[in-house]
Amino acid sequence: MKNIVLLGAGRSASALIQYLLKWASENDFFVRIGDKNLSVAEEKISNHPRGQAFAFDVQKYEDCQSAVQNAAVIVSLLPAHLHVPIAQACIEAGVSMLTASYISPAMQALHNEAESKNIMILNEIGLDPGIDHLSAMEVLDDLNEAGANITCFKSFCGGLVAPNSDTNLWGYKFSWNPRNVILAGQSTAKFMQNGQTKFVPYQRLFTYTEPIHFSQIGDFEGYPNRDSLSYLQAYRIQKVPTVIRGTIRKKGFSDAWNVFVQLGLTDDSYIYPNSAETTYRSFLNSYFQYDQHLSLEDKLKKMLHASMREDVFERINSTGILEDNIIGLDKATPAQILQQLLEEKWRLEPSDKDMVLMQHIFKYQLEGQNRCLRSSLVVIGQDNVQTAMAQTVGLPLGIATKLFLEKKIMLKGVLMPLVKELYRPILSELESCGIAFREHSTDISELELYN
Amino acid sequence: MKNIVLLGAGRSASALIQYLLKWASENDFFVRIGDKNLSVAEEKISNHPRGQAFAFDVQKYEDCQSAVQNAAVIVSLLPAHLHVPIAQACIEAGVSMLTASYISPAMQALHNEAESKNIMILNEIGLDPGIDHLSAMEVLDDLNEAGANITCFKSFCGGLVAPNSDTNLWGYKFSWNPRNVILAGQSTAKFMQNGQTKFVPYQRLFTYTEPIHFSQIGDFEGYPNRDSLSYLQAYRIQKVPTVIRGTIRKKGFSDAWNVFVQLGLTDDSYIYPNSAETTYRSFLNSYFQYDQHLSLEDKLKKMLHASMREDVFERINSTGILEDNIIGLDKATPAQILQQLLEEKWRLEPSDKDMVLMQHIFKYQLEGQNRCLRSSLVVIGQDNVQTAMAQTVGLPLGIATKLFLEKKIMLKGVLMPLVKELYRPILSELESCGIAFREHSTDISELELYN
Repeated sequence: MKNIVLLGAGRSASALIQYLLKWASENDFFVRIGDKNLSVAEEKISNHPRGQAFAFDVQKYEDCQSAVQNAAVIVSLLPAHLHVPIAQACIEAGVSMLTASYISPAMQALHNEAESKNIMILNEIGLDPGIDHLSAMEVLDDLNEAGANITCFKSFCGGLVAPNSDTNLWGYKFSWNPRNVILAGQSTAKFMQNGQTKFVPYQRLFTYTEPIHFSQIGDFEGYPNRDSLSYLQAYRIQKVPTVIRGTIRKKGFSDAWNVFVQLGLTDDSYIYPNSAETTYRSFLNSYFQYDQHLSLEDKLKKMLHASMREDVFERINSTGILEDNIIGLDKATPAQILQQLLEEKWRLEPSDKDMVLMQHIFKYQLEGQNRCLRSSLVVIGQDNVQTAMAQTVGLPLGIATKLFLEKKIMLKGVLMPLVKELYRPILSELESCGIAFREHSTDISELELYN
Repeated sequence: MKNIVLLGAGRSASALIQYLLKWASENDFFVRIGDKNLSVAEEKISNHPRGQAFAFDVQKYEDCQSAVQNAAVIVSLLPAHLHVPIAQACIEAGVSMLTASYISPAMQALHNEAESKNIMILNEIGLDPGIDHLSAMEVLDDLNEAGANITCFKSFCGGLVAPNSDTNLWGYKFSWNPRNVILAGQSTAKFMQNGQTKFVPYQRLFTYTEPIHFSQIGDFEGYPNRDSLSYLQAYRIQKVPTVIRGTIRKKGFSDAWNVFVQLGLTDDSYIYPNSAETTYRSFLNSYFQYDQHLSLEDKLKKMLHASMREDVFERINSTGILEDNIIGLDKATPAQILQQLLEEKWRLEPSDKDMVLMQHIFKYQLEGQNRCLRSSLVVIGQDNVQTAMAQTVGLPLGIATKLFLEKKIMLKGVLMPLVKELYRPILSELESCGIAFREHSTDISELELYN
């Protein structure tokens, strides 16, 4: 039997475990699942004959050593900063490893060692990073092979709520770590626009949106996310004049979120005094000047006056931040206070379904024509456990693990999934699991080529 | 002879050294000056018979030990984070110490040890912190003793350029560390307004100004600076409804500086790519969206449109940031690039004089009257060495040192200068050195009491 050792049995592991157990018998897999919380791992195995749970603590050297013993491959779903000790144990034992996390500098530094030990450490093989790489590289390679002059590449992704479960004014519920949503965008966004490097700081990021449409799903918007420049070399698109990666939100989200940003409510750098006893209303009021003639509602409307957007006020109001409820959270930062409020209001209920959206936009010249190709992915969660997020993170990882054990992937070193050998078979099997991109291509004018 | 050991002979030490040497003979002082750069210390002594230079490296344990040997008192002008090892050596040797720096938590932690060793570690006895404490506490104590109901206390300070040397559109030249000026305000400002705690994040700070007038000098403006809340207890003003400490700039400065802030040019958190080869003009342009129809000047004017302020554009333009000159600074952050540009344009020339401004505003009710008292300080530098900054930082430190050696200060422990025993004699001698506050008092309406 081939021992697959999966580390970390949290929320996003469900679809991966289901996939591996489904194929276990046919492929002679045995799936061992390690988690700090043994019962969580046991629950996920649910007495499957080809599964076994074990207690695992990445902080313990012996646990890392014994996890890799007799493993055919390691799959780590632990938080990104915990991968390195496992990777080191893998290198020592000569066992390959897969993760869905960004390659950290510490992980990248292990490349030569991994290569010389003849093992593969494949990272960024989840959703974003993951499916975005696979699907973008497939089209980019095709266009390059056809001789297209690519003028613009944009890639947007978002984890949202399914239309039928979309019951709040923001079109948003938390399907992953809420803290990351609250703090999103706090590093300056960097990208290419018409051959020029562009920078958008946090204080202007949420005014910098562009419309994104998904047929039958509706109107969304995208804002630039982090450092798109770091993808130029990896994607081999150094000569593409416009390159932007971004985040998808429901249309109107960013204008309202920007109010929180401008007020300073997403600040995570200081403790708000007496946060336990303060109400949300006085918390909000403390970010406005004193004015004996204006109510807090009036002050907020006055701030929004320039944009004349009643809908922005209604979105803010719907969070309950104007209400006199006690925060009750001790020694909290403004960002933690806002998070607590929104976790209550934007909770994905047991009956709710989440949704993952991705859209790549390619503009290019080919055979005298100016074209725009939109490649779109819509994944709706099955339920509260087999969420769209769990499927899109877990399935690429599961498929890559199976392909590796079938010896259909023969790569070595610390890698991202950017080559045909990986994206072809993985995208093809994802499609059979219902995770399929739809392409839509149109003629465009020359003026539209770069934006 | 009483050995005064002064550590750190940088720019701000000139007035202090001059003061101590002036009083040396009459008071039997001997002034030993230690600096990492021996020749800098020698230059400051300039062969004075009661002075001696020595090489001193605070990183070396032996240097700290030997510096305190036979010292009657230690005066440290080193950067704030370097005071603690010296303070520890002082405690060990039973020698008192003075600094012009804010009390760090590590310094505060030495309070009990210092007290039990019967020594004084007096901090924050320069300009700001320093003269601000002395002069504010004098008026606050007077008002309290008179039975006034204090409703508002604001305290503003700025290091600027003297009117006769004010030759640029910003009314600003660097009289101290330029880096601190570029990064000023990046932590959220916190203060009290009408009994409510208020927070202003960096992205709104420079829109949050109030006018400040100095008679015969002109119109300035103040914006809130850092954490005014931390002064409520120290100043014993917990019941004062409005408490704001702030920074003074020439009228119009903040509106123009806010353009740099909004664009993201004061960001110190990432390296700007290819900063050495880029021009200032393309650096600036990279913070604006691509637009084939608009020049950079047009884009900047469009951004300023809401405020319709031609003078803001002219201020920005005067820095040379729209020009095609090469930056030539390798691996620099946006903030470092901006600093280099402004250090060139806002340099205090040898013939220039600097200026220190301070204004405290007290509003109160007393004997049925509503009053506003403004206490203002204007200090113009003598020349390029005996600057207003060096005088206002060095003289309070020098005077406190002399008073200590005359046994007129008998305090123990880690302290700020907030008591009568300190502010009375120091303010009195400062006045004889030409550093004197002028008070101006008016009747105000009840509505004005809190703002």
